[in-house]
Amino acid sequence: MDEVFNVIDNLFKTEEGDLNILGKGIKIIIIFILIKLLIRVSYAVIDKVSDKRKKRLFSIDDKKINTLTTILKNIIKYILYFIGVIMVLDIFNVNTTSLIATAGIGGLAIGFGAQSLVKDVITGFFILFEDQFAIGDYVKIGDYEGVVEEVGVRVTKLRDFSGELHIIPNSNIDIVTNKTRGSMRALVRISVTYEEDLDRTIKVLERVCKQVKESNENIVDGPTILGITDLTDYGVVLTVIARTKPMEQWAVERELRKRIKEAFLRENIEIAYPRRVIYDKKVEG
Amino acid sequence: MDEVFNVIDNLFKTEEGDLNILGKGIKIIIIFILIKLLIRVSYAVIDKVSDKRKKRLFSIDDKKINTLTTILKNIIKYILYFIGVIMVLDIFNVNTTSLIATAGIGGLAIGFGAQSLVKDVITGFFILFEDQFAIGDYVKIGDYEGVVEEVGVRVTKLRDFSGELHIIPNSNIDIVTNKTRGSMRALVRISVTYEEDLDRTIKVLERVCKQVKESNENIVDGPTILGITDLTDYGVVLTVIARTKPMEQWAVERELRKRIKEAFLRENIEIAYPRRVIYDKKVEG
Amino acid sequence: MDEVFNVIDNLFKTEEGDLNILGKGIKIIIIFILIKLLIRVSYAVIDKVSDKRKKRLFSIDDKKINTLTTILKNIIKYILYFIGVIMVLDIFNVNTTSLIATAGIGGLAIGFGAQSLVKDVITGFFILFEDQFAIGDYVKIGDYEGVVEEVGVRVTKLRDFSGELHIIPNSNIDIVTNKTRGSMRALVRISVTYEEDLDRTIKVLERVCKQVKESNENIVDGPTILGITDLTDYGVVLTVIARTKPMEQWAVERELRKRIKEAFLRENIEIAYPRRVIYDKKVEG
Amino acid sequence: MDEVFNVIDNLFKTEEGDLNILGKGIKIIIIFILIKLLIRVSYAVIDKVSDKRKKRLFSIDDKKINTLTTILKNIIKYILYFIGVIMVLDIFNVNTTSLIATAGIGGLAIGFGAQSLVKDVITGFFILFEDQFAIGDYVKIGDYEGVVEEVGVRVTKLRDFSGELHIIPNSNIDIVTNKTRGSMRALVRISVTYEEDLDRTIKVLERVCKQVKESNENIVDGPTILGITDLTDYGVVLTVIARTKPMEQWAVERELRKRIKEAFLRENIEIAYPRRVIYDKKVEG
Amino acid sequence: MDEVFNVIDNLFKTEEGDLNILGKGIKIIIIFILIKLLIRVSYAVIDKVSDKRKKRLFSIDDKKINTLTTILKNIIKYILYFIGVIMVLDIFNVNTTSLIATAGIGGLAIGFGAQSLVKDVITGFFILFEDQFAIGDYVKIGDYEGVVEEVGVRVTKLRDFSGELHIIPNSNIDIVTNKTRGSMRALVRISVTYEEDLDRTIKVLERVCKQVKESNENIVDGPTILGITDLTDYGVVLTVIARTKPMEQWAVERELRKRIKEAFLRENIEIAYPRRVIYDKKVEG
Amino acid sequence: MDEVFNVIDNLFKTEEGDLNILGKGIKIIIIFILIKLLIRVSYAVIDKVSDKRKKRLFSIDDKKINTLTTILKNIIKYILYFIGVIMVLDIFNVNTTSLIATAGIGGLAIGFGAQSLVKDVITGFFILFEDQFAIGDYVKIGDYEGVVEEVGVRVTKLRDFSGELHIIPNSNIDIVTNKTRGSMRALVRISVTYEEDLDRTIKVLERVCKQVKESNENIVDGPTILGITDLTDYGVVLTVIARTKPMEQWAVERELRKRIKEAFLRENIEIAYPRRVIYDKKVEG
Amino acid sequence: MDEVFNVIDNLFKTEEGDLNILGKGIKIIIIFILIKLLIRVSYAVIDKVSDKRKKRLFSIDDKKINTLTTILKNIIKYILYFIGVIMVLDIFNVNTTSLIATAGIGGLAIGFGAQSLVKDVITGFFILFEDQFAIGDYVKIGDYEGVVEEVGVRVTKLRDFSGELHIIPNSNIDIVTNKTRGSMRALVRISVTYEEDLDRTIKVLERVCKQVKESNENIVDGPTILGITDLTDYGVVLTVIARTKPMEQWAVERELRKRIKEAFLRENIEIAYPRRVIYDKKVEG
Repeated sequence: MDEVFNVIDNLFKTEEGDLNILGKGIKIIIIFILIKLLIRVSYAVIDKVSDKRKKRLFSIDDKKINTLTTILKNIIKYILYFIGVIMVLDIFNVNTTSLIATAGIGGLAIGFGAQSLVKDVITGFFILFEDQFAIGDYVKIGDYEGVVEEVGVRVTKLRDFSGELHIIPNSNIDIVTNKTRGSMRALVRISVTYEEDLDRTIKVLERVCKQVKESNENIVDGPTILGITDLTDYGVVLTVIARTKPMEQWAVERELRKRIKEAFLRENIEIAYPRRVIYDKKVEG
Repeated sequence: MDEVFNVIDNLFKTEEGDLNILGKGIKIIIIFILIKLLIRVSYAVIDKVSDKRKKRLFSIDDKKINTLTTILKNIIKYILYFIGVIMVLDIFNVNTTSLIATAGIGGLAIGFGAQSLVKDVITGFFILFEDQFAIGDYVKIGDYEGVVEEVGVRVTKLRDFSGELHIIPNSNIDIVTNKTRGSMRALVRISVTYEEDLDRTIKVLERVCKQVKESNENIVDGPTILGITDLTDYGVVLTVIARTKPMEQWAVERELRKRIKEAFLRENIEIAYPRRVIYDKKVEG
Repeated sequence: MDEVFNVIDNLFKTEEGDLNILGKGIKIIIIFILIKLLIRVSYAVIDKVSDKRKKRLFSIDDKKINTLTTILKNIIKYILYFIGVIMVLDIFNVNTTSLIATAGIGGLAIGFGAQSLVKDVITGFFILFEDQFAIGDYVKIGDYEGVVEEVGVRVTKLRDFSGELHIIPNSNIDIVTNKTRGSMRALVRISVTYEEDLDRTIKVLERVCKQVKESNENIVDGPTILGITDLTDYGVVLTVIARTKPMEQWAVERELRKRIKEAFLRENIEIAYPRRVIYDKKVEG
Repeated sequence: MDEVFNVIDNLFKTEEGDLNILGKGIKIIIIFILIKLLIRVSYAVIDKVSDKRKKRLFSIDDKKINTLTTILKNIIKYILYFIGVIMVLDIFNVNTTSLIATAGIGGLAIGFGAQSLVKDVITGFFILFEDQFAIGDYVKIGDYEGVVEEVGVRVTKLRDFSGELHIIPNSNIDIVTNKTRGSMRALVRISVTYEEDLDRTIKVLERVCKQVKESNENIVDGPTILGITDLTDYGVVLTVIARTKPMEQWAVERELRKRIKEAFLRENIEIAYPRRVIYDKKVEG
Repeated sequence: MDEVFNVIDNLFKTEEGDLNILGKGIKIIIIFILIKLLIRVSYAVIDKVSDKRKKRLFSIDDKKINTLTTILKNIIKYILYFIGVIMVLDIFNVNTTSLIATAGIGGLAIGFGAQSLVKDVITGFFILFEDQFAIGDYVKIGDYEGVVEEVGVRVTKLRDFSGELHIIPNSNIDIVTNKTRGSMRALVRISVTYEEDLDRTIKVLERVCKQVKESNENIVDGPTILGITDLTDYGVVLTVIARTKPMEQWAVERELRKRIKEAFLRENIEIAYPRRVIYDKKVEG
Repeated sequence: MDEVFNVIDNLFKTEEGDLNILGKGIKIIIIFILIKLLIRVSYAVIDKVSDKRKKRLFSIDDKKINTLTTILKNIIKYILYFIGVIMVLDIFNVNTTSLIATAGIGGLAIGFGAQSLVKDVITGFFILFEDQFAIGDYVKIGDYEGVVEEVGVRVTKLRDFSGELHIIPNSNIDIVTNKTRGSMRALVRISVTYEEDLDRTIKVLERVCKQVKESNENIVDGPTILGITDLTDYGVVLTVIARTKPMEQWAVERELRKRIKEAFLRENIEIAYPRRVIYDKKVEG
Repeated sequence: MDEVFNVIDNLFKTEEGDLNILGKGIKIIIIFILIKLLIRVSYAVIDKVSDKRKKRLFSIDDKKINTLTTILKNIIKYILYFIGVIMVLDIFNVNTTSLIATAGIGGLAIGFGAQSLVKDVITGFFILFEDQFAIGDYVKIGDYEGVVEEVGVRVTKLRDFSGELHIIPNSNIDIVTNKTRGSMRALVRISVTYEEDLDRTIKVLERVCKQVKESNENIVDGPTILGITDLTDYGVVLTVIARTKPMEQWAVERELRKRIKEAFLRENIEIAYPRRVIYDKKVEG
């Protein structure tokens, strides 16, 4: 490029040692051709790399790789355009101090504002790249949870069970809790009185567990009786847990609750209601 | 521009090598003509692009595009004016150190202050561009919720159900929960005693659900009985859910509650009131 | 200015090439005349613009515009004075390194301190310019609420209902909730027992609503019975709402409460008190 | 100054072109005379301005203005001394790089530490200047409240009702709630049963209000019965409010409470105690 | 390198004093050979050091050292490539100002975004190096706890007991609580009435402790009766503690609870239920 | 100094124009003599000033002034040493770029870390200088309170009533609440039933107050009956307050409580226990 | 060093005025010898100082001093190596701009990340130097407490009573509460009914206190009856306190509780249970 520019400098020099308009025009054209070429080349390189990746990593779906390559291409394109514009301005000896003053103040202001934009993109990239969650997963991000509806470069959208749509800028995503990676736990707590025969209660619960296991195909493991998980001031808390397919834990819990309630009613096992010991003192009203 | 300026430099040079007042005046005029021209050109480019967009994207309403183009035009206009002013000052060899000292201190101070202003505009832009919410939507932003009354470049205004107007600078908008994108969920919880016959209760609830479905046209899906969602220390919690048109969930919930209450009264299904087991000990008062 | 200064430089040059005291004095006078002139001109420009604005925007009251123009004038005045002082110091070849060292450390320290001052002024400007609230409005800012007593450039003063005066620096103002923009909502909740006849209760409430509507002129819309807004563990919650003139919502609520209470007493409708189901167990005391 | 220095430079030049010790001494003396003069002049200017202010603004007490002028004088004095020291060091050609290195690291460290010191002074200045509170006022700052005992340049001291002394650095003062600007509100809430005759209760309360008004001279306005401010699950809440002289609101509230309690006892108006509806179920103990 | 480059400079110089294309190509090749060599050398050094470490520190498993060396190698590789690229660009006299402008703005933006990325890596390195936790450990990080499933350079993954997968960026890891380093404590609290014979109760508890100790092999030490750890307003709280193998504390607690409950029922030791002293006043209903 | 150094430069110049080793040695000796002298001089100045202060301000104890002067002396000593070292390095023409690179990175890192150290010292200085608290005072700092055991330059140590020692870095000290400046308030609240005769109760309380006043010498003022400070839903709250010597408020409160309790028991004044109104509904168990 | 280098420069100069490879090698060797020497010297100095310290300060144990000197030696060693590397690179005229570019971006990134690392080391140094806590102490840091198991340069490890190991980076250590410096307080609260004879109760408690004092050797002072520390709405709270050896306070509290409970049961002193006054209203069920 330098060689070519030197030749142009010599051909179109004015007597003041500056370049005349024709020379400048030619230079600009050359710059833009170069920029375009560089964009093409980098696009080709990215495509080749992504193709190789696709063959190697079957697990990551094609769409995700396409998203990543599109982002990359865009970033490279804008950087190269930006370099081109500055080189052209350089040719025209544009009063750069005024430009820099403008850019400085503006850049500073925008820098602060764009800061979270950059963080959005970087976090978005890592979510995709590390496969933290995918569309359809049920995740919890901060105080918000729901089914992932969109994983974008700037925002992630969660559809809450209540139907609400949470639009979360990626820079607000910190710790992610993914509830669709592996089996989930269904947990039911039931408290019986201190007077109740524990061994009989456990036998009844075991029978319920066996029934649920047989009838419900969403259960991966269990249900089993964990044991006495608390001694409250009015009863004994028994806990039953099971491993279920993801997103099915709530349904399994509801079924367990229904069956336990009915078995207890049938078997006359007393549920523990809050208790009070009352000391009566008569007073003259 | 350089060529022209060189000519002027030569024509109006004083014997000290400086430019005389006439030359400066001409230069200023040229600068302002150029600035005006650049503004026109960039306006035309923006209009053309926005026209093309309008044809392509029917979904985004015209008004939104107009807002965006107006912002863009203003930003470009002020930047170009600013460059012009600096170029003119340059011509007059204004004592730039004093200027820069002033600008430096002022710029720093304003920079900090304006920081949130820039963030207002950028966030406002993304709200419009990504269509996070539109006027009339019912959204929740942080601790505030209400119907969107205005989506501005700097502030967003929400009208709360209580009539209060929340004026939220856009830089305070982080995670947006939009409650008017898709059907909403109506949810009613009712607790019955442990002694109650669950199958009969569920039958009664199903009859209520069927009636409500038939009579209420705002329901998209359901209502259905989800099941036993909790076992409290005084009763069994049954949950009924339905999908409704947005903003109609509360009305559907109210109707469901009224019907369930009446059906339970009619059918003699016992509501679960808090329970206490009392051990009486007589004491000498 | 440059030309004039060059002339002076030549006339009053000492043999060391420096300017003598007379020349310096003349220069200073010229600078201050220029500064004064520039202040006058910018004042005139601001006045003209504000006059034009006043004619165009009848809604924004004159006082507000005057406040804004006064701020603007002050800012411009001080900036121009500051430039003047530096130019004069420049003439005297004051040992600038010591000055800059002082200014640097001081400026940094003051910069941090003044930061919130600048934010005060910018936020104050936007409150006035966007008309977020005006004197006499009832607003909520953060945890503080009250009637606006003063909207200043640096602080806003709220008079609480309790008589307390909250002095809030504008930089602490973030999200503003204005309670005097449009009609407000009066809301009364009353809970009746599960055994109560709902249709009869609603009829009684409707009669109360009609009476209140006729007798109270501050009501804009309603009162209407919203419906059953909750099923608690001891009763059915009925909600009555009305739209009222701003600041009258509390009075309307008090009137509604009084009338509902009296109607319920008259009609023998049972208020829902908390309930307990008691299981008595005799123990040997 | 420059002219004088040049003369000295010529008189006391050594053969290496440097100044000899005598010349340096003379220069130092001149610098300090100048610094002293400048301090005097600026003192005189400040005194004159403050005198004029005192005449114009009768409301702001003299002591406050004196505090402000003392701060200003100190700041100017130290800045001028600092400039003097640097100019003297300059004369001696002190190895400035080592000095600057030291100053740089130290300045940075102290800058961070002194930051809050500067904020203390600026906030203290505004508290005095804007008259946000004065000695003897009862204010609330953050979580602390009490009578202002000292408003200093760096700290504000509050004497709590409990006798504790809160020492608050001014930079920690944000939003100030002043409870001694204008009349304060005394507020008493009393709840009566739902069965109580409201009209009779209000009549009794009105009689109490009238008595209190006549006997208590600290009451500015009222007491009046606001109305039914709440319907709790066991009674009707009636609220009585009054406007009192500042700091007398608590005494008025105590008096109101005493009189209301006595009137209710005399007139047999039932206070609302929490209620329970009890469903007895016999169980085999 | 310099010597070689000088030779090349002399051989391939054009008449303008610049280097021709051939010379540039040779230079580039040399640079890349050098870079490759340096990478090889540093790899070898790292491998040697890590081998020595492996022999010395048997406790740290090989896999961890491999992870660390891989990170180190990657960092060195990218730094050397980066230096190489800049040197090549230098040879071509690429217009560095435009490059620097681009890099400056981009670098600033990315710097902010990458900041937490760097912190991720550094924290990850320390977790591995200091062996804060390993895969399979049960740890608590902030509000999240679970079994460590992956300790990565950027994120750590915890599998909660509920099956949820917490993905925690390392920069969010602060204080780590490791629950698998040494024996854990099982703790059971049981409250008996004030009237109960304490010595008898303790004897019963001791018998339970002895039984549990004999039957449960996961207990390291105890269980022993700590004593009366609280006097509540309805009973005496007795606490039993034991030391168990890590992760077995909950099972031991459940067993202890079951045995204590059964022993108390058998021995007729009264559990403390909340108590109330009741003063009856008759009122005219 | 300059003159002396010039002489040395001329005497020990090598032929390359550099200084030889002998000259360098002499220079170093001179520098260190000068540094030592300066330290001595500044010590003497500080001692003189502190002596004058001691005579003038009798209230501030000598020890405090000594602490302050020691800090000052240390700071000056280390700054002068630092300047000395840099000047010596300058003489040896040490490769400053490598030094600066090291110092730059190190200084930045240490600067951030040392930041809170500097803040510790500055805050510590102000605590001593403003006499915010002294050893033996009972203060509250943030969430920690106790008797001050040590006021250091970096940390303050509080001995809690529980025996715990709180070690608080001074930079964490913000708002200080000193409980040993002036008399403290003892406050006792007692609630009697609504039926109780208030005038008689107050008379009983007044008699108690009189007795306590006579027997307890730690009381500065009171005890007096403040009045009815609250109307709860089961009784009337009466408040008694007294002014006591600092740290004696709790003992006075305990004495007041004991006497009031005994007087009420003797005089048969009913304490207000929580009340319930019970509506009995018979249900078929 | 300069003299030697100049000699080398002259001996091994190439004709281009550069140094040839042999000269460079010699220079490098000299640099590394110097660096090694400097490290030795500084080690010796540190050792000498630490030896002197050890003799003077018997209280600080040797191990702590060794830790500090090791840290110091490491820091000095790495700084000197770093300077050496830069000097060598300087000899080779390595293209420093590319190096600086790399170092700049890397340094900035690492600077942010290493910031907390530096703070770890500085805080760790102060913990050791000020002897805030030592291994075996029972301390509370933020929300975590336990026995100190390790005080490192980067992290502090606490072993909780529950067996959990808290790994706390030193930079997270702020306010430290040390519970093993001096005697601790044991405190037991017991509430008796309002009807109970206080003097008799206190006598019983005093007897218990005497017994505990005699039988328990861990008590330093007391136990004594503090008095009536609260009047709740159902009883009188009596507080007993004692001073114990550190870490023995909980055992003493447990013993006190057991003895008080038994004495009260024996002496028939009534524990205060919550009280309710009941107003019965008959309703038609």
